[in-house]
This record gives sequence, C-alpha cells and structure tokens, in this order.
Amino acid sequence: MSISRLSNSRLSCRMGLKMRPKKGNKSKIIEAAIDLFNKDGVGNVGTNRIAAHLQISPGNLYYHFRDKEDIIRAIFPEISAATEAALMINEPNLPGEAQLVAIAKNWMTVVWKYRFFYGNLVELLRNDPELRKLYGRRREATLHFIKSALLATRIREKQGKSPLDGESAMRLAINIWIIALNWIRYLQIDKSDAEISEAEITDGAHQIFALLEPYLDEQAAVILRESFK
Amino acid sequence: MSISRLSNSRLSCRMGLKMRPKKGNKSKIIEAAIDLFNKDGVGNVGTNRIAAHLQISPGNLYYHFRDKEDIIRAIFPEISAATEAALMINEPNLPGEAQLVAIAKNWMTVVWKYRFFYGNLVELLRNDPELRKLYGRRREATLHFIKSALLATRIREKQGKSPLDGESAMRLAINIWIIALNWIRYLQIDKSDAEISEAEITDGAHQIFALLEPYLDEQAAVILRESFK
Repeated sequence: MSISRLSNSRLSCRMGLKMRPKKGNKSKIIEAAIDLFNKDGVGNVGTNRIAAHLQISPGNLYYHFRDKEDIIRAIFPEISAATEAALMINEPNLPGEAQLVAIAKNWMTVVWKYRFFYGNLVELLRNDPELRKLYGRRREATLHFIKSALLATRIREKQGKSPLDGESAMRLAINIWIIALNWIRYLQIDKSDAEISEAEITDGAHQIFALLEPYLDEQAAVILRESFK
Repeated sequence: MSISRLSNSRLSCRMGLKMRPKKGNKSKIIEAAIDLFNKDGVGNVGTNRIAAHLQISPGNLYYHFRDKEDIIRAIFPEISAATEAALMINEPNLPGEAQLVAIAKNWMTVVWKYRFFYGNLVELLRNDPELRKLYGRRREATLHFIKSALLATRIREKQGKSPLDGESAMRLAINIWIIALNWIRYLQIDKSDAEISEAEITDGAHQIFALLEPYLDEQAAVILRESFK
C-alpha cells in the first residue's frame, strides 16, 4: 500500500466516513470544472452542477473541495505551470528570437484552455484574497521574466539605436501581457465561444509578434513572419 | 409650448397616465445607471435599484425604458460620441503625431467614465443582439479610422524603411484598441475600483504611446515622451 493511499484511508477513518471517495476523483473534478466554467461561465456553474456532471455525490466533491473558490485555487497551479512551460521560464537560457513565435503560440493555447480564468479575472481575484496573493506573485515574476528577455535581445543596439531602457522594456512587457490575456475576450466580443477557431487563437500569437516586429531587424522579422504562413 | 413638451403631453394622455413623468428624468436615469453600474457592477444593479436611487417610482422609469438592456442601449450613443470626440474622428484632417498624447489621454478618460461597459462587453453583447449590431459597426469604423491614421503618418518611410503595409497597420490598430479597452481591467486585477487614481488612467495613455514609439523618429519620440512628465 502506497503512502498516499495509507494516509487517505487513515483520514477516512478519522472522519468516520463509511465510503471512501474514489481515488482520482480530485483530478476528475478539476478537469470537469475547467470544461464547465469554459462552456457556461464561472458564475453559472456551482459545485452541485460539477458533481452532477461527474455523477458523484455532492458529499464526495466536498471531501476534496470546500467550495468553488477552493476548486479554482486548485486549478491555478496548473495554469501557472502551463504558462511557465509555454514561456520557457525555467529553461537555463533566456529564449532567443527564433523561439518567439513558438512561445507566443504555446501561450495562446494555454490562455484558450483556461479562458474562463482570464475572462473572469477581475471578479475571481476580488472574491478571493488568497488567490489574489498567489496570482499577484506569479504576475510579478512573469512580467519580470518578459522584461529581462526583451532586454537580453539587445536588438535595438544591433540596428544602431540606443538600447531599450528598463522603463520601455517594462511597458512593452505589460503590453504583451495585456494582448495575450485579452485576445480571447477580443474574439468573444464578436462571436460566441463555439465559433472561435484554432486559427483565430494562433492569430493572437501573431498580434503579440506584431508588438515585437518594429524592434527586430529585417532578417529576423522576415523569418518570424514566414512562420505564420 | 415647445414641440417636444407638446408631444410628451399628448403621449401621456394617450396612455391614460395621471401623472406626467418629469421632464429630464430620462437623462437622470441614464446618469444614475452609469454611476451605479460602475460602482457595483452591471450584474448587481437592476431597474428597481436605479429607480430607488433617484427616488422615482419603477413605473416612472418604465415610462422611459423597457428594461436594463434598453438603458444600456441608450447609453451606447453617448459612449460612441465621446469616443469619436476623443479620437478626433470627425475632424476634417487625420490627427498628426503632435496630437497623439492628447488623443490617448482623452480616450482613457472615456474608457474610465464608462468602465462598466468595457469590463462587461462580452456579456453585454451576448445578451443583446441589437447592441451587438450597433457595437460591431462602431468598432469596424473606429478600427478603420485608426488604421488610416497610422498609414497616413508614413513615419517608417521618413526613417528610410519600407512603409507600414495594410496588414501591419491593422494589427497595430487592433493592439492599440485592445490596450485602450483593457487598461482599466488590467488595473482592477490588482486593486478595487476605488483605489485606481487618475494618474494610473493616464498611464494607460502612456502604454498606448509605447506601442507607437518604435515607429516614431527620435525627435517625435522625445517630444511625446516629455508630455507624460
């Protein structure tokens, strides 16, 4: 018997539960919540709806999560990890220009997968101080990473211009951030979720690239432009 | 007796109303709705709440507006007119580089004044096909105007580069649009409405300017940068 199963069974005994909740339900609940939140909106999906969708009892869901906020907080590390992987934050070296398009495309895929989160960020953070703290830290770290990556390219210098200063790099990082996180919302303003195609999500990556294009030299710009065809 | 008062009184007779709704209530209702929507969120403010706030009867409000959607549709022309004025869309000439900062600042003031609208755009348009049509037309026209203004600057040519093509100009216009309309949301992600200061709203204008900076020649960039100090 593994340690995790042992502690799970001990906990069940302590709580006097007759039926031990099925192993793996926790991740199934998270997965179903993401799907339903994306489909019907966070405001329209409660814990009972998630339990009914999975054909488990509300009690079984409450064994894993106190409430909806608790589920969203459990989704957040998944969003953080996916974002870090897309942006190559944990790679030993800062990404080079050749990797920009792949990074932007991967980032947009993450934003699409968790679109309920980005679409409701103001409300979600207002309702949950703990999530606000977690999110604030990730945001700071990610913006700082993007700024460092921009400064590292030294691309303006290669064009004989004065280097990008810290303030301009931070403003550019914030603009990249705003475009990435609001691209799906921009698409939703004209159509319903169902009609948004994968090509349009990739177009968000192209919008991010458009922010960088004036800073790239002609050769890099042409290579990157080609990769969107 | 003016024509508008005459027709108002005739309408009251036809509807068999004993008390004629006060003249000017319509614009008072619109003003109160904007304030309450901004303060407490569109979802939390109903027609009864607006009537109570103005100390008028619900019937008096219904004399002017069928429902909340009807009020929001009545606010929209005000938002359109304010945006057109800020962007100088109806001026005989396209704006020059020297006007960019003033335009961006004025635009951010409009976005702040109607922040409930931009914050809830996805939901508002999803719930009201008529508003969706009105908004879609304004959006098309405004994006086209921004694109034309960008192409008219011919600033890349002045720097000896190939001119901005139509596609790049449209991508830049869309990025400007997304930053302008989501800057307040970006601020709200860290703090509540009450804490957002006028200086931070102006900072949104600086973010828009940062999108244009790499396209400006050194002289124009310095002049515009100075105007944010």
